[in-house]
Parts: sequence; structure tokens; C-alpha cells
Amino acid sequence: MKVDLNADIGESFGNYKCGLDDEVIPFISSANIACGFHAADPIVMDRTVSLAKEYNVSVGAHPGFPDLSGFGRRKMAVTPKELKAMVQYQIGALYAFCKAHGIRLSHVKPHGAMYNMAAKDKDLASAIAEGIYEIDRGLILLGLSGSMLIEGAKETGLLAASEVFADRAYNDDGSLVDRSKPGAVITDEDLAIERVIEIVKNGTVSSITGKKITVKADSVCLHGDGIKAVEFAKKINAALNSEGISILPIGSVIKEA
Amino acid sequence: MKVDLNADIGESFGNYKCGLDDEVIPFISSANIACGFHAADPIVMDRTVSLAKEYNVSVGAHPGFPDLSGFGRRKMAVTPKELKAMVQYQIGALYAFCKAHGIRLSHVKPHGAMYNMAAKDKDLASAIAEGIYEIDRGLILLGLSGSMLIEGAKETGLLAASEVFADRAYNDDGSLVDRSKPGAVITDEDLAIERVIEIVKNGTVSSITGKKITVKADSVCLHGDGIKAVEFAKKINAALNSEGISILPIGSVIKEA
Amino acid sequence: MKVDLNADIGESFGNYKCGLDDEVIPFISSANIACGFHAADPIVMDRTVSLAKEYNVSVGAHPGFPDLSGFGRRKMAVTPKELKAMVQYQIGALYAFCKAHGIRLSHVKPHGAMYNMAAKDKDLASAIAEGIYEIDRGLILLGLSGSMLIEGAKETGLLAASEVFADRAYNDDGSLVDRSKPGAVITDEDLAIERVIEIVKNGTVSSITGKKITVKADSVCLHGDGIKAVEFAKKINAALNSEGISILPIGSVIKEA
Amino acid sequence: MKVDLNADIGESFGNYKCGLDDEVIPFISSANIACGFHAADPIVMDRTVSLAKEYNVSVGAHPGFPDLSGFGRRKMAVTPKELKAMVQYQIGALYAFCKAHGIRLSHVKPHGAMYNMAAKDKDLASAIAEGIYEIDRGLILLGLSGSMLIEGAKETGLLAASEVFADRAYNDDGSLVDRSKPGAVITDEDLAIERVIEIVKNGTVSSITGKKITVKADSVCLHGDGIKAVEFAKKINAALNSEGISILPIGSVIKEA
Repeated sequence: MKVDLNADIGESFGNYKCGLDDEVIPFISSANIACGFHAADPIVMDRTVSLAKEYNVSVGAHPGFPDLSGFGRRKMAVTPKELKAMVQYQIGALYAFCKAHGIRLSHVKPHGAMYNMAAKDKDLASAIAEGIYEIDRGLILLGLSGSMLIEGAKETGLLAASEVFADRAYNDDGSLVDRSKPGAVITDEDLAIERVIEIVKNGTVSSITGKKITVKADSVCLHGDGIKAVEFAKKINAALNSEGISILPIGSVIKEA
Repeated sequence: MKVDLNADIGESFGNYKCGLDDEVIPFISSANIACGFHAADPIVMDRTVSLAKEYNVSVGAHPGFPDLSGFGRRKMAVTPKELKAMVQYQIGALYAFCKAHGIRLSHVKPHGAMYNMAAKDKDLASAIAEGIYEIDRGLILLGLSGSMLIEGAKETGLLAASEVFADRAYNDDGSLVDRSKPGAVITDEDLAIERVIEIVKNGTVSSITGKKITVKADSVCLHGDGIKAVEFAKKINAALNSEGISILPIGSVIKEA
Repeated sequence: MKVDLNADIGESFGNYKCGLDDEVIPFISSANIACGFHAADPIVMDRTVSLAKEYNVSVGAHPGFPDLSGFGRRKMAVTPKELKAMVQYQIGALYAFCKAHGIRLSHVKPHGAMYNMAAKDKDLASAIAEGIYEIDRGLILLGLSGSMLIEGAKETGLLAASEVFADRAYNDDGSLVDRSKPGAVITDEDLAIERVIEIVKNGTVSSITGKKITVKADSVCLHGDGIKAVEFAKKINAALNSEGISILPIGSVIKEA
Repeated sequence: MKVDLNADIGESFGNYKCGLDDEVIPFISSANIACGFHAADPIVMDRTVSLAKEYNVSVGAHPGFPDLSGFGRRKMAVTPKELKAMVQYQIGALYAFCKAHGIRLSHVKPHGAMYNMAAKDKDLASAIAEGIYEIDRGLILLGLSGSMLIEGAKETGLLAASEVFADRAYNDDGSLVDRSKPGAVITDEDLAIERVIEIVKNGTVSSITGKKITVKADSVCLHGDGIKAVEFAKKINAALNSEGISILPIGSVIKEA
């Protein structure tokens, strides 16, 4: 029994501080580090890679759309070719800091609108997967469980890691319930943790309609954007440990699977 | 007898075309490719690396200040720490495209104001050199002959390549005559070529005061920003060949020296 | 009989030159000037407003999405509130240069993806119209003939100007044939001019299926992005004149209608 | 007896929150609002103008260098012509939101490195003053007391407002003691307030060498970047009131002087 806990960190920019990176990092095993398009700048990236190294947390690139004012959360009509180049650029940029700090880059997780669009669009998912593959076929693509990102990674020959969200409800088909719908976000922390444990142990969870569905979880996405989020990270970390579930970096979860 | 001919290419951006890359590349042996801060975008970088590969030209990163509207030509008061991170970011970004196209990154040449500032400021020069060294100590730092960039590279333990400008006059101390002064730019093409040949063959050239001074030239900077510049590239390439001077990529000039 | 000829100008940026502004401006009566988001910078805007003043051409703001690398041509999922603020910001920026040069701002024409999205989406069209209205209810909204932009302007209480494209085919419902479809672009210049004259004189044109449809034309969009485009501008200008159709700034066409 | 209290507000950007605008605004009479170059975006500007209107605080444009990652604090080698255009662009952008909210734009205060550079460089100061003058000669230029900004404004024919800093020490010549020197920043709040009151009442203050010097204060710069800064704003506001010094918007201080 093992699972990775990941969080998006390194999202500060210049004079702007964002996220409680120092507080959440003790409770995660993998970090997705912003690469300068939707968030972060070179100084922030350098500092964040250094922080991840200090806590022995696996480092992944977290590429986003070139939309700083929208924080990469606005859909942009990019072509697969543009997307592939954007992703490669950002992976390379983060790779430089990994190299400088003597650590390995382990994975890539697209951010925000890029993640959501590619989860549903095979051409975009494949563009991302191919972009990663051309740089280093040992990199893992971390994407929404059951989505096109996982399919695109596998077809390309990349290792894929399936991500679940502790605080989100699922539709019967395994997709996330849209945030605009009632019940989409699970606010009861104990219930959220219970669900994650069920997913990790049994690979199942109750959908929003009450049906038992199959969900694969190599990694659970946590947040670091507030005290409450950090407290939850601590709590789920402890709960998994007490259930005898090992919290391991994404590569250790995937590669020995 | 050997020398490298280099040019800054890949400076287009989005819808904006800039430079006659396709026309100048047959006459150079090394290309300095813009990395997205002062010019270029991921798509342009991908295309430019591909072009360099096709012509078997050595590829270097050409990092600049984050000042697209100023084309990296405006001095910015960056700290050595900021500069180092900026340079590492950009090297990494270009490295990704080299990796994707299966070619090696050979060198780094700072652009515009970054080049000029670091040529005179040891702290900035060292920041650049250290940034490069931490990523890959096999990379060559291409900088103004006799400048702090060369000194910074050597102290850091990097290979340094000395650059000269065919169309520029020199002061008695080996520094470039400021562009604002009369005689700073050599417009007589034959004279410019003659001077380059003297520098390569003898390591000397006449300063603006008429004094014979010592100048080291591992690489000659050419331009690709107009028909006339391309014609000059062709002409100097032919002249060097007819003098029995081999035109070789920067690594071949430096590493066997 | 009167019509406005408009063109998008002032799309250069920093070191990047784009468009033959000086060449096309003698043949147009209204200029849509880029405002720094998808193209242009403050220096370019200043110079372009000055050029428009010199040629006594009406000046309009040409706001676009904040996507310089995509030239404002990529759809972005902005909210009406964001869009309204983006448009207001850009109108204000251009207004400053109009004020400095002592000329009036006459109209606003959204650019690229913003134009296309708002042509079909009433909420976005209304956001643009309201943004304009709050700044100056005397400004004219120039939008695709028969589109939501025209409807949004009218509902808001703004004057609307209907734009047609000389080189584009129309569907039976008066919308433009998608560029990806055969016959969408009319390459025969004489035919294009003949069609514009019919639209201006009779308010009708043949759709792509051969049906005679109604199209309103207050303004015809010309291009300035190449010698051929400039030649066409000259030709259509002459043809309209010889037909006795007055070429007048957009305000003169609209306000006395 | 009267003085203006000003603060830089509206410095958030997209997802990034910066500054305690809501907390500091009750204690100031004039607000300098960021214009999108060094900080802020259209949505933030709209919201900030609305906030200033709600508190009946005078609104000024706070233009900065196009350096979001450096927060406009890094010196950039701009030409006077570039600077003038940058300033005009940003004034216009903010003006649009003032117009939309039905309030007047009262003044312009350059930000960060632009402020510091122009305080010492007459050409840059004049470029800013002329840029403002061309748009609206009724606008006030708020600049460092005794600096080139004040001189440039007066020569151009603009009203100038002299700014002092409550927490900074002065050299004998009336310039600010460089932050890197001991004693440059006054941390004793009571002393800081006492000094401001002396400046407002008598136009004098003790320099760092203990000499009594003359300093003109139309406006005192406060900060809103932390709880402590807000507490100080409240305290100095109360102290001035209890001394019978009226706290009035910059225009009321200047224009009736």
C-alpha cells in the first residue's frame, strides 16, 4: 500500500508571495514547481528547487499557459504544436535549476487550464506527452486519473501517474464533478480522508450518485494556499500513515507498480 | 589557422519576423539562439534549433534581459543573484529543444545590455559564468575579447571564447570604441575583412589611434539583420577560406587550442 | 453613397516592425490602432497616432487579448468582467496619445479572437459595449455586420458601425464563411471590389450558395500587411471613387445616416 | 496648516494579493494607483479606483517601468522619449477607470526606480512632466521634495507637489539619506511623527548631521504593506489632526497654497 502526496508549490512571483510552501512541504512527497509562465520567476524557481531538495521531495515541472494575469486558469486556444513547445520550454527551464542543485527532475504535471483542457482533448494530451518524451522518456506524466492525459502518456510510451483530488466528488464515469455543481467540493475533511483511503486501498469510491466506481490513485493532490489547506495536508498525511499506507515520491509509487 | 563565425539568430517572436536566419546560416559555424526573454518564443526556438541542426551549426544559448519591448538592449539594474537565475532559466529552456532535436548545446553568449554590462562588471560576469558552470561545466562562455566575461569564465573554471566584431574599431586598451564616437563603426567592408584576417593570423589590429594592439579572436560576430549583412557574411566567409583559415564551430576552435 | 475604409495599423512592437502603415494610410479613412496587449507599445502608439493625424484619418482603439506571442488571435476564456476591464484599460491608453496629439478618439474595434468571440457571444459583446459606454458614449463600436457586437452596442446605447470584409464569402445567414472552408476567401480582386460596391450601393451580396442576401456596410476592412494588400487598398479606393461613393471617416458615415 | 497623506495602493496582480488597501485607505487623502506596468491589472485598477471613490480619496496615476518581475524597482536605461510614452500610456489607462467611475484624476506620482531616477535626472523628470502636461495640464506631479521632479514640473508649467517620507532621514542638502547608510530609516514612530509635524508647521527638520534644514511638504508618503504600516498611518493621521493640521487631498493642499 503506497501513494504519493503532491502539491503545487513555487507559485510566488517577484514581489508577490503566494502559497505556504515552507509549511506544506513537510507533508508531501512530490512537488510540482511552477515554471514562469502562469507563475514563478527564475529566482523563485531556484529557491523552490532548493526547498524541495532540502525536504527530499521529488521535483516535477508544472508548466502552464503564458497567462500570468490569469494564473494559467483561463483556457487558451493553443494548437498541439504550440502546446508541445510551451511545455518543452518550461521543462527545460526547471531542469536547469534541478541540474544546478544536483537533483533529478522526476515528473511533469500540467497546470490549470492546460491540465483541464488536455484531460479531455487527446490531441493536446498527446502533444504534452510527446513534448516530454522527446526531452527525457524517463519523466513521468502526472495527470487526472482516467483522463486523456493518462491515455496520451501511455500511447506515447511515457510512464503515467494517476492523480486524484481529496476534496472533489466524482461522476459515475470517473470524471470530476464540475465545480459549479452542488456537491462538487467535499468540505468534510474526515470524509475526504476516508474517501482517499478507500481509493488507495480498494481502488473504489462512491460517485456523486452513490454508485461505487473504480478510481486509480498513484498520487493525491493537496493544496498549500492557506493555513487550512496546510492543516489538511498534515492530517491526511498522518491518516495515511496510521493506515499503514506508505507515502512515497511519485516515481517510487509508479515504477515498482 | 582557424576561427568561428557566429551570428545571433532565432529572434523572431510570435507574429513578428526578425532577421534573415535562413540566409545567414550557411555562412556561420555557430549560432546564438534567443531564449524567450528579449526575443523568441517556444515555437521560434524549436524551429531555430532545427535549422541549426540542418546546417550542422553549433548551438549556443543567447540569454537576455526580460525586456521584450526593449529587445534586451536597455541596461537593467539586476543583482548578480537575479542575473544568474535568469541565465540558468534561459539556458535550460534552450537545452530542452536541443535535447528534443538530439543535438548538443555548445556555448552561451549573453545578449545586448547583459553582454555589455557583464563585459565591464566582474560580479555580473562571474554570476553568468557560475550560472553556466552549475548547469554544465562543458559549456563555453562566448564573450567580448579581453573583457570581464572572459576573466569571469576562466576564474570559474569554464572554457572562454573571445569574440571580436568585424565592423567595430578598438581603443588602445583593446576595448570597443563607443558607438557614439566617430570612427566607431567600420563601414568599409574590405577593410573590415582585412582587419579580421590580421586578428586571426597575427592576433593584432590597429587601434583607433593607429597603434598596433593585441586582440584575441576565437570567434567573429556577424549579423543577419538585412541583405547587406548577409552579403557581408558570405564575403568574409569566402575571404577567410581563401586565406586558408578554417571556419570551425566554437568548440573546435577553443578546445583544441 | 458613402462608406468608410478601415485598416488595423500600429502593430509593430519594440524592435519588431509589422505592417506597411505608411503605405496603406493614404487609402483609408479610419485607422484601428493596437493598444499594447496583442501588439504595439507606447512608442509605437505615439507614432501611429501622429501618423493618423498627419493623414487626417479617424482614430479608433483596437483592443486585443493580453497575448502578445499569439498576436491576440488565440481565443481566451475571459469573463465579461475581465473583458470589460481589458477594453477600458486599452481605450484609455490610446486616448492618452490622442489627447497628447490634440485629436479625437472616434471608435473602438476589438481585435482578432476578441472580435470573433464577441461577434457570437452576447455577454462578451455587451461587456465591450458597456466598457466603451462608461468611458465615452460618443465612441462608435465597429463590429462585424449582423453580429452580436452590433446588437450589444445598440442595446447599450452606443452607435454601432457595421463592418464587412472585401475578401470574404458570406453564408446565407449573413455570417462569414469559416476560413477553413473552400471558397471562404475571395482571391479575385475585381470580384471582391465588385461585391463591395454592390453591398454599399444595394445592401446586398451573393452568399456562398448563390443566394442574394442583405448585408449592411458602414465600413470595409482593408489590410496593410504586404505590398499586395496595399495595392488592393489603392485599387478599391479608386474604384469606390469612380463609382461616386464617398470614402469618409466612420463617424461621418454613421452619424449622418 | 494642511498636508496631504498619500499611499501607493492597487498593487495586486491577477491571483496575487499585495498590500492592505482596504485598511490603509481610511487614513489617507490621496491614493497613487498602479497602472499595470510594475503592478496591477485592469481588474485590480477598476476595483482600486472604485475603492478610492468610496473613501473620497484623490486618485493619482502611479506609473512604473515595464518590469513586473522586478516590481518597477530595478533601474532601466530608458530614453526620455520612451519614458514619456510609458507615462502617457499608463496615465491614459488609469484615466479610463476614473472616467468610468465618474471621478477626476488628480495627480501623477512615478513609482520606484522611475521615481528615483527622475528625482536626480532632469531630462527624465522633464520627460515625465511633459508627458503629463500634454495630456492634461491640470494634473499635479507628485515628486520628492527638492528633487528634479519638482523642478521639471515647474519648468513645464505643471503644478508640483512636494513629497516627504515620515520614516526617512535627510542629508544636509535636503536629499534622502541612502537606505544603505546607518540611520537612513527612522524606526521610532513617535520621532517620525514629530518630524513630520515640524516639517508641516515650520518647513524645517534636523538633518542626519543634526543641522536644521528646510524641507517642503505638501504630501507625506505612507505605506500599506503590513499591519504595522497601517497602524502607523492611523497614528500619524490622528497626531496631525490633534495638532490642528488639516489632512486634505493633494489638490486642496497645492492649489490654494
